Order: sequence, then C-alpha cells, then structure tokens
Amino acid sequence: MAESYDVIVIGAGPGGVAAAVRASQLGAKTALVEAVHWGGFCLNRACVPTKLFAAAVERRRGLAAAARLGLRDVAGEIDPGALFGLKDELVSYFAMGTEGLLKAKKVSLLAGRGRLAGPGRVAVGESLHEAKAVILAVGAAWARPDFPGADLEAVVHPARLLEEAKIPASALLLGAGPWALEWAQFLSACGCRVTVAARERGLLPGFDPEIGQRLRAAWKNDPVTFLAGCRVIRASRNPEGGLAVTLSVKDREETRAFERVIHFERRPALEDLGLESVGLKDLRGNEQLQTAVPGIFAVGDATGCFPDLSHGSTAMGILAAENALGAARTYDPRVVPRIAFTSPQAASVGLGEEEAEEAGYDVVTGTAAVAATPMAMIQGAAHGVVKVVGDKRYGELLGVHALAPFATEIIGAGALALQMEATLEELARAALPHPTIAESLAEAAREALGWAIYLP
Amino acid sequence: MAESYDVIVIGAGPGGVAAAVRASQLGAKTALVEAVHWGGFCLNRACVPTKLFAAAVERRRGLAAAARLGLRDVAGEIDPGALFGLKDELVSYFAMGTEGLLKAKKVSLLAGRGRLAGPGRVAVGESLHEAKAVILAVGAAWARPDFPGADLEAVVHPARLLEEAKIPASALLLGAGPWALEWAQFLSACGCRVTVAARERGLLPGFDPEIGQRLRAAWKNDPVTFLAGCRVIRASRNPEGGLAVTLSVKDREETRAFERVIHFERRPALEDLGLESVGLKDLRGNEQLQTAVPGIFAVGDATGCFPDLSHGSTAMGILAAENALGAARTYDPRVVPRIAFTSPQAASVGLGEEEAEEAGYDVVTGTAAVAATPMAMIQGAAHGVVKVVGDKRYGELLGVHALAPFATEIIGAGALALQMEATLEELARAALPHPTIAESLAEAAREALGWAIYLP
Repeated sequence: MAESYDVIVIGAGPGGVAAAVRASQLGAKTALVEAVHWGGFCLNRACVPTKLFAAAVERRRGLAAAARLGLRDVAGEIDPGALFGLKDELVSYFAMGTEGLLKAKKVSLLAGRGRLAGPGRVAVGESLHEAKAVILAVGAAWARPDFPGADLEAVVHPARLLEEAKIPASALLLGAGPWALEWAQFLSACGCRVTVAARERGLLPGFDPEIGQRLRAAWKNDPVTFLAGCRVIRASRNPEGGLAVTLSVKDREETRAFERVIHFERRPALEDLGLESVGLKDLRGNEQLQTAVPGIFAVGDATGCFPDLSHGSTAMGILAAENALGAARTYDPRVVPRIAFTSPQAASVGLGEEEAEEAGYDVVTGTAAVAATPMAMIQGAAHGVVKVVGDKRYGELLGVHALAPFATEIIGAGALALQMEATLEELARAALPHPTIAESLAEAAREALGWAIYLP
Repeated sequence: MAESYDVIVIGAGPGGVAAAVRASQLGAKTALVEAVHWGGFCLNRACVPTKLFAAAVERRRGLAAAARLGLRDVAGEIDPGALFGLKDELVSYFAMGTEGLLKAKKVSLLAGRGRLAGPGRVAVGESLHEAKAVILAVGAAWARPDFPGADLEAVVHPARLLEEAKIPASALLLGAGPWALEWAQFLSACGCRVTVAARERGLLPGFDPEIGQRLRAAWKNDPVTFLAGCRVIRASRNPEGGLAVTLSVKDREETRAFERVIHFERRPALEDLGLESVGLKDLRGNEQLQTAVPGIFAVGDATGCFPDLSHGSTAMGILAAENALGAARTYDPRVVPRIAFTSPQAASVGLGEEEAEEAGYDVVTGTAAVAATPMAMIQGAAHGVVKVVGDKRYGELLGVHALAPFATEIIGAGALALQMEATLEELARAALPHPTIAESLAEAAREALGWAIYLP
C-alpha cells in the first residue's frame, strides 16, 4: 500500500533512529525503513558488543590493580561463552527497546529493504511510498580485501566472529583502528595468539600520532604482535587447517599461519539503493547534510565520513531531520570525538598537532603525563597522557587528545570546549575535580600556556 | 634570619601549593610556610587516602560485575592492612613529589608554623619575614562535637582512623556529606557495622536533593544504617568496651553501642594565626579573594567556603596569586563541582533545582536515567541519573548533577559548560561519545528542552 509521509528515513542505525525520532518530534509524519535489525549495525554488531568485550578486558586487567588495592583471592579468566551470551541478551534488550522507543515516538516502522524510486519516492519491498524528504542512513557494508585468497572461508569480518561465538587459536587482524584494536585485546585476553597488521606506521590512524605511540608503549608487554607498514600478499589453505598468509613487512616477505584473518574495512552501502533513479552517484552532502539532490539528505557511514562513530551519526541524524523540515543548521565534524575502548582508553577530538600545522596555525601544544597524578596512581594506571593543541596567535583551543583511564568519558569536556570555541586559557582555568583523570585536561592547557602547576 | 619576599603563602595544601607555584611563575620571590605536611590535609589525610579506599570498594563491587562479564573464579575481600600500607606509600610519594615540585618551581620552603606579625610581616618560629602580599591557605581544623562525652577517646576524627590503621567492629558516623559517606562505604566493605547519623533529612546535603535520594535508593541493600534528622544527645563508656551513644532520632530517644564515633566537621584554622596583629577577625574575602586588609588574601577551607574541595582551593590559589601580583580576576564558586567517591559516584555543579527556584529563575529541568543506557548496562550499573537545571526564559544552563559510574570524571564537562555560559541547547547538541555515561549529559539537556531522543 502506498502511503505519503513528510519524511522517510532509510536505515535504523544510530543516525536513522535519531533522524526519525527528531522528525517525528517536529511534527512530521515519519517512517523508518529497516531491512535487518532495529538499532542497526552499531547496536547489533559493533559498538555494543565490542564495548562489552572491552569492559570484560578492563575488569580482568583491573583484577591486578585490585590485588594491589588489598583485595585478596582475586583471579579471573574471561569465559567467552558467558560473555557471548550476555552480549546476545543485551543486544536483544536494546533492539527491542529501540523498536518500542520508535513506536512511542510515533514513527511508522517499515520492515524491509528501502530504495529510492525516483524523486520523492521510496520503495520498500513491493510497496511504494511518497515522501517530501528522504534521509538516507543506510550505513556501510563490508569491503572484502582484494589479495588472492581473500575469498577463503577463514577470512572473516568481525560480525562473523560474533556469529561463531568462538575464540580462534590465532588470528591476523588487518588494520590498527579502534575497532581492530578492541578486537585484538579481547581475543588476546581470551587466549588467542593475535597479530595486528596495518599499512600505516602507527596505531590509531586518524588520532594525534602521539596517542598511538603511547598506546603501543602501554601494550609493549602484551602478547599482541604489531606489524606496521604491512600488507597481505596472499593467503592459502594450510594442509593442517587454517591459513598460510604471506605478508610484506617493510619490503620483507614472510609467511605465517593463522586460524583466522579478520578484516574491518567497510564502505558506504550504496548498492541497490536506487541512487540512479534520482541521478545520485554518492551520498556526500553539503554542510547541511543535503546531497546533490534537494530533499534527499544523508547521514552517518553512508556519507563516507566518520566511519564507526555512532555519536557522529546521531548528531548528523538530528541535524538532517531538522534541515529536512526547514532548518538550515550546519554540521561541524571537527567537534565529534574519536574514541577507542582499548586499555587504556584513547580519545581524540579536533585537530592533531600535525593537522593543525598543515592547516596553517601557529601551533602550541601542552602535554600532561597522567600516570603521575593521584587518580592514575590510585587506579594503578602506569600509562597515560592528555595533550592539547592550540593556536598561539589567538589562544584558540584546536584539539584535545587523551590516552588514559576513562578517556572516552572525559573527552566529552574536550568536545564541548571545541564546540563552545573555548580558548586554552578558559580550559586552563576550569575547576575540574580533584582527584580525577579529567583534571589533567586543565593542566595540559596550562602547560601549553607555559604555567603548568604540577609539571616540573 | 629575616628575609624579604614578594609573596608569602602560609599553608602547603592544594590552595597554598597552587598559589606559591603561580606567584613564582609570575616572577615573584615567593616563600611557602608549612608546619606539618607538604601537600597538606587533602593529600595526607583526606582526598588521596579516601579516594584510594573508594577505589578498593569500587573494585570489590566490580567483581560482581566481572562475574557477570564472564570472569570466572572471582572472589575478593579487602585486606585493610595492605590498603593502609599502599596508602602510606602513595602519600609519601606525593608529599615528596610536592616538595620536589616546589623546589623546581623556585619556591622557598619555610618549615614551621606561620603567623601574621603585623602588616606585611610573617613570623615562622623565631624568624620574622617581610612580604608585599600574604596568601593565607591555612585550611581547617577539627571541630570536636559538643555533646556530653564528645571528649572520650573513642570519639575520633577520620585522620585518627588513618593513624590507627585498624577497622573498628562498629562505628557511628556523624554527617552525610561526601567524606562521611566515603568512609561509611569503606568501613562497611571491610566488615564494620556502620551507622550514618545526619541532622539533615537526606544524603549529600549541598548537592541537588535528587542525587542524595537516588544514592540512598542505590544503597538500600547495603548493610549501612541511615538515621536522618538525628543528633547525638550524649555518649558514655560501655562497661564491656566501646561507647553507649544516646541518639535523638525524629524526637525518639534511643541508645546504641559503637566501638567508635567518627566526626567530620572542620572549621577555618584561624587560631594562633596572628589575625589580630592586622585587625582581621576572619578570612572571608571579596570576589578577588582579598580579605578586609589590602595585600592579605585567603583561599580554600580557611575562608569558610567550599570545605573539602581541593580543586576549589586550587582554583582560588591560582587566582589569589595573580591578584596579589596586580591582576583583578574574580572567583566564581558556582563553577566548582562538588563530588563524592561513593558507589555510584555523585557529582554536582552549579545550582540545584530548588536553589535555582529560590534565585528567581523560571526553572526547567531535564533528567536522563543512566541505568537504561548501553554503557551502564555494560558496566552492570543498576542505578544512575543525570539531571540538568536550566532557565526557561533564556535557555541558560544553571546546574548539572549526576549519580552514575564515572560521575566525578564526567562532571568536568558540566563545569566547563557553566564556565563557558553554555545554553541547554548547546549541551543538547554536544556530540558526546557513544557508548559512554557522559552522553547522558546531552540527553538530559534535550529532555529539558522537550526533545529527548532516547527517553520515551
């Protein structure tokens, strides 16, 4: 049955849910189309599962600190079976909750695969619907790597590992972004022999490079092998099971055996979306998140920017809904933090030091060692740093970067500071609570200004 | 030997250390006078020890969550002996570090009791020194309660408990502020039978009342007894050891037995400070932290405002040093967060709902339940709330309050938002990372504005 809507949103991940809820709140007759999972990839296959695993890893590491804190008789191995069970339970709970929320917010739910069918038209299965505005929040799809042997069954994406609910004995992880590193430490904590192979020189590409360097230092006693500047040449089945993988590591070729090769790359899920029916080639939009076709907006991973950052997608979803209904707000990706639930956690918002230099700023940085602060010592955290990047001329704060316990929680203050266009001076004078990890944000800003109080 | 300084700071707690370092950084010839401990009360007797104990309590509670996360064979009792040992180790480390820092910052250290000896003069023991400006950061002293029997040996302050390094079998704690509650949960976790008696109706007076109510709900299965609206009538020695304490609880008298009664009240340490030599009666200052006598500044607990908040003292210390050397900055206590390392943690900055109403604002509030968010579920946190208070007319953010895991870390974003004079709308649009506890700050602001995305 054809139906007319003010707004149709395709894709019920974080961006799509936020867009649909916001549109409905603004009085628009709104439908949300989803083919697979309410809550999308983040909830069902990525953020929630991996952050749960990261919490287990963190708790396990915390047991060592607990012993130091006078807690006797503490041991603890991760039971992957129990954890996968808890994951299923949490994911179902939130998926159900998402569905209930959308109904409470008066969003019409259309189950099925949505595609554009010409200007102002969306097809869902056999039905054709009309919409004054369409918001595409279709996310991304796996990009299988292209080395010979990449189509072998033992070359998998992490969602496949979730389905298998089984820890391989050994694994080669392709990439050193947050997602790959979260999986690396989880698999390693469960007894898997983990190798991380990245084309880049360092960990956490996209973060200020110092964060990745410090993380690598923090992990130097961990049983995870890092291969930087590395690519896979080919993979083949080993006669005794698993894969023989030939790698190029700094121009040296070597072959290693792994039970699984895990790839993490995704690209905008534009296939079979009917883009040609409206004359679109991709979903890159303007600052107001409108694509090249008026009335068609796009948010989140589908746009090709900020992959794997659901809070970025959420912010885009809210904005796109408002703009689809007549507002003209602009989206500022600079204030969206990158985060990694590694141990210690990493977080980064705004410009890194090199990025700021390339952008022509007269750069000043300030760095506060977190490990020497009371809260880090209390937590038994041996590693950590907070770094701020600023502009010397006007004292503008340009970026905040952290590798520290609770980094994903404290970076919110950095995001807000950038959004509010804070100066280094303002951050330096913030009365952040003592003793916390967060207080190092102010000390790093003071260091940038030349008047750190606690750094020698 | 008499010496002439630009600035003499009396008291080497957080406020005094910050003042001395800042004055020296600004080029002033600076001396810091301390009679007991470099680092003061916060480091040696209060913040650092109690936060260490709170971390042990938190880790112990975390073991239950760890079991849920698939960590097998987890048990754990707190070994108070080991913990007191670690406390001594950390405190010595930081006290030494503070002394080293002050020397590196070119502050002259004068060990001994400092007192004013007329305008521009400070006596330290037998020596008399001259100063263009004096900053008094003398902190507070124990205020022994005044009920009959309060002078018995078993009526102690918490610093005495630290010296004893022994957990009593039972204890009555007088007060329901952060410090008392931190001790309550630590003693209870170590097997002490704890009763908290407070004159006030609720927990955490000074915080938004909802935070205290929620904390009480969170603790309802804990073996801590709360007596609200309660005062001690008298205490006497029990023949079989310990104390018999007669309490008035809501106009009912009853007598209970305790091994220890613990009191937490402190008042500005003004005795033997030579205030009369300059004609001062107390250390209340103006907005620029100058007392009634030009050239004499006061910061921290000595001023009688913001007791037990070392980061408030630090901010005051920095400001007083700058103003003593010619600046005219004003101190805004409204942006200094209150925190409690309870489990869950509590934090509060700016105005509470009732305070805002009393101040004449057209109040709007927004509340986000934390327990239903993905990160709280991952952490196994069953309780939690973030509440924002705002003004309806101009949309101004007036206060941020939290009871949640990591509340002491995330409240920094609230403090910064208030300092930057953020609106509810700006907080509502912050791209706070997902999944975190911090993201509830934005959702609470959206709720206040009537467009919460995830709340039904």
